[in-house]
Amino acid sequence: MSILIKNANIIPMTEANSVIEKGYLVIEDDRITAVGSQEPPTGNYNQIIDATNNLVLPGFVNAHTHAAMTLLRGYADDLPLMEWLETKIWPLEAKLTKEDVYWGTMLAIVEMIKSGTTCFADMYFFMDQAAQAVEDSGIRAVLSRGMVGLGPENQQALKESRELVRDWSGKAQGRITFKLGPHAPYTCPPDYLHKVMALAAELNVGLNIHIAETLTEFEDIKRIYGRTPVAHLDHLGLFAYPTVGAHCVHITEEEIQILAQHKVGVVHNPESNMKLASGIAPVPAMLKAGIPVALGTDGASSNNNLDMLQEMRSCALLHKVNSCDPTVIPAYKALEMATVNGGQALGLPEVGILKPGFKADLILVSLQEAHMIPRYDIIANLVYAGQAADVQTVIINGQIVMENRIIKTFDEENVLTQAKRAAERLVKQV
Amino acid sequence: MSILIKNANIIPMTEANSVIEKGYLVIEDDRITAVGSQEPPTGNYNQIIDATNNLVLPGFVNAHTHAAMTLLRGYADDLPLMEWLETKIWPLEAKLTKEDVYWGTMLAIVEMIKSGTTCFADMYFFMDQAAQAVEDSGIRAVLSRGMVGLGPENQQALKESRELVRDWSGKAQGRITFKLGPHAPYTCPPDYLHKVMALAAELNVGLNIHIAETLTEFEDIKRIYGRTPVAHLDHLGLFAYPTVGAHCVHITEEEIQILAQHKVGVVHNPESNMKLASGIAPVPAMLKAGIPVALGTDGASSNNNLDMLQEMRSCALLHKVNSCDPTVIPAYKALEMATVNGGQALGLPEVGILKPGFKADLILVSLQEAHMIPRYDIIANLVYAGQAADVQTVIINGQIVMENRIIKTFDEENVLTQAKRAAERLVKQV
Ligand SMILES: [Zn+2]
Ligand SMILES: [Zn+2]
Repeated sequence: MSILIKNANIIPMTEANSVIEKGYLVIEDDRITAVGSQEPPTGNYNQIIDATNNLVLPGFVNAHTHAAMTLLRGYADDLPLMEWLETKIWPLEAKLTKEDVYWGTMLAIVEMIKSGTTCFADMYFFMDQAAQAVEDSGIRAVLSRGMVGLGPENQQALKESRELVRDWSGKAQGRITFKLGPHAPYTCPPDYLHKVMALAAELNVGLNIHIAETLTEFEDIKRIYGRTPVAHLDHLGLFAYPTVGAHCVHITEEEIQILAQHKVGVVHNPESNMKLASGIAPVPAMLKAGIPVALGTDGASSNNNLDMLQEMRSCALLHKVNSCDPTVIPAYKALEMATVNGGQALGLPEVGILKPGFKADLILVSLQEAHMIPRYDIIANLVYAGQAADVQTVIINGQIVMENRIIKTFDEENVLTQAKRAAERLVKQV
Repeated sequence: MSILIKNANIIPMTEANSVIEKGYLVIEDDRITAVGSQEPPTGNYNQIIDATNNLVLPGFVNAHTHAAMTLLRGYADDLPLMEWLETKIWPLEAKLTKEDVYWGTMLAIVEMIKSGTTCFADMYFFMDQAAQAVEDSGIRAVLSRGMVGLGPENQQALKESRELVRDWSGKAQGRITFKLGPHAPYTCPPDYLHKVMALAAELNVGLNIHIAETLTEFEDIKRIYGRTPVAHLDHLGLFAYPTVGAHCVHITEEEIQILAQHKVGVVHNPESNMKLASGIAPVPAMLKAGIPVALGTDGASSNNNLDMLQEMRSCALLHKVNSCDPTVIPAYKALEMATVNGGQALGLPEVGILKPGFKADLILVSLQEAHMIPRYDIIANLVYAGQAADVQTVIINGQIVMENRIIKTFDEENVLTQAKRAAERLVKQV
């Protein structure tokens, strides 16, 4: 299968602010084989896409979410954190079945594809269902079975993780990879984290963990273990394993250095942190320390969408006002966080850049809408004014997953119907 | 002309969180004549709209913008404020012609209609062109000729304002109203503001002014006049006239009381304030003091979009994290700010509510998209996950201005073409 995209405005993400005008891009099977600005190479392409008036860029990497939580979207909002979790989110979550997780994940995948996300990192349960949804839909994902050391399923989570890696690794044309998912330092005590690390070594996979999301967590960990969360995890030796740390809101200057030194992939979730009033992560300081901070939406119950264009914009705006400095996180940096840095954080360095040899995960975005005019700076337009509905076509692993806003790899309508039914069943049980 | 909308989920904005399920709404000429939840009244309607799977709510009121600045979108971003203004925005603005302002305003109107805005407050120059665009497009607007007391056109601005009110008041089927637009206390010295107030009294119109957008302004005004900006304007007697004050970022607790007492319409512009790093307005405190704070996007050069759905979301999220309190500005409050409060602030109390006797300014929003599922709380869905492209149909003053995303009142394609040309001409001159 080969595809030629021509007459495109290409943002390759290889160099700051670079845009290839009237460019072409060639895809063979799952990889990009050529990108350029002159006449495209002649050849027998299976498909030729004329991208006139379109922007072509890497698909977004949603580096932290809980996909099936779309089924909890709008179930509870604007509540204090513990009341929200204890009286609303956890009771409903406890009722989720395998089928619910499948349809919830599929619903998330519809929303992600339709807003230009081509890869996501997921931490949840019934992850064989999430893997199935990833296989069925054509998207790329890094999956983790959430592990709550203090919970009743802590042993089960280790067992399931081993089985998932055995059954699913390299499946779905290589679109699925795994990480172990110890939930957080406050839910996973040291002895449990040691078991997780042993399993990571055995299976040769990395880790995906929440770190320092709230001030309460920061203070509790410090009180219990005598160290702040990042320092505590470092002391346990966790960062010897390739680690993605979500949130990192409440961290010290010293801890930023620890994260940088161990090349921990930090995922910033600005909208979730804002909505839950968790705090503002020191992203400019982390970027300055050389951490290629990635972006995530977190679950739909605390956002309440999975739209990476909005997440980029919120990130850029929030840190400007928080730093009292309008030059902080310029448009290109936000775009880098949503693409290249996502690939790096998740251990997928061939994702997030348009360059020969890299994975063909890319999107076509319309430049024809009123909010994208004029075209002085198409990167600023995209980041500060772009909308999910501007995403026209989505290619993942060389496959056209959405074309002119029609999903090609599965029946979108059926997913919406099944997800609605699952939500209706669910809410009747609580 | 009469229209029946049936089978709708209606958010009338008459009572917190109230939604009329399977409701109807009747429009005769420019007004709503009936809203209910039972069988709609039989009658000979000119048009019947089946709103199954749609939300019907008041159109958004963008209570502060500079519409024609769409022509400056993306021309300069991520720069320090004064460098941005002096080296980029002002030189380009100086080249704008009458025709540019017309097409720039029309471009803004396309974007606003397509994101559900039915009324906007505009402050700019060549305002006869803006009025013409409002007449041609079918939107509602409150227009102000910007007046810079320290600028060379200060007398011209007074003269033009008088002519505008004479020539345009009540035109466009009553969709156009006027306010005088003294730019800000730091650009309009007291003697000039006195002239503006005299003219306001003569013409019987209100005022639209920027107040305390930056800390520099706050400190300068205090240093020069011995009073902080709101207190300074109050001392001059400005608030004896119905006033809309944009921004109010840097204000004291005492000044909040002054604004509340004089019923000044405060317009919060969270995204512009974030992008320019101006600061965070004390919106929760203003709401608590009884000020019905409205929302605006500000100009497209500092946002860079005119999307009120995003503005609502940014407002709700920003103040939660800034207050360390996730209960601050819940979804319904944000929606109220974007609708009812906008009408009140602009002196249009018949706008922003769906109730018999009120103006028929309303929008139909699709509930069919993945990001709007499930439907536990359609108000939270709209505010936290709604997208501009979900807006299907827009009715203003009883006229269908957009139907199923097609603009009916003018040629959208032509506007986009003319606006692109204007921008190309413009950028060649600097
Ligand atoms: Zn999470
Ligand atoms: Zn303004």
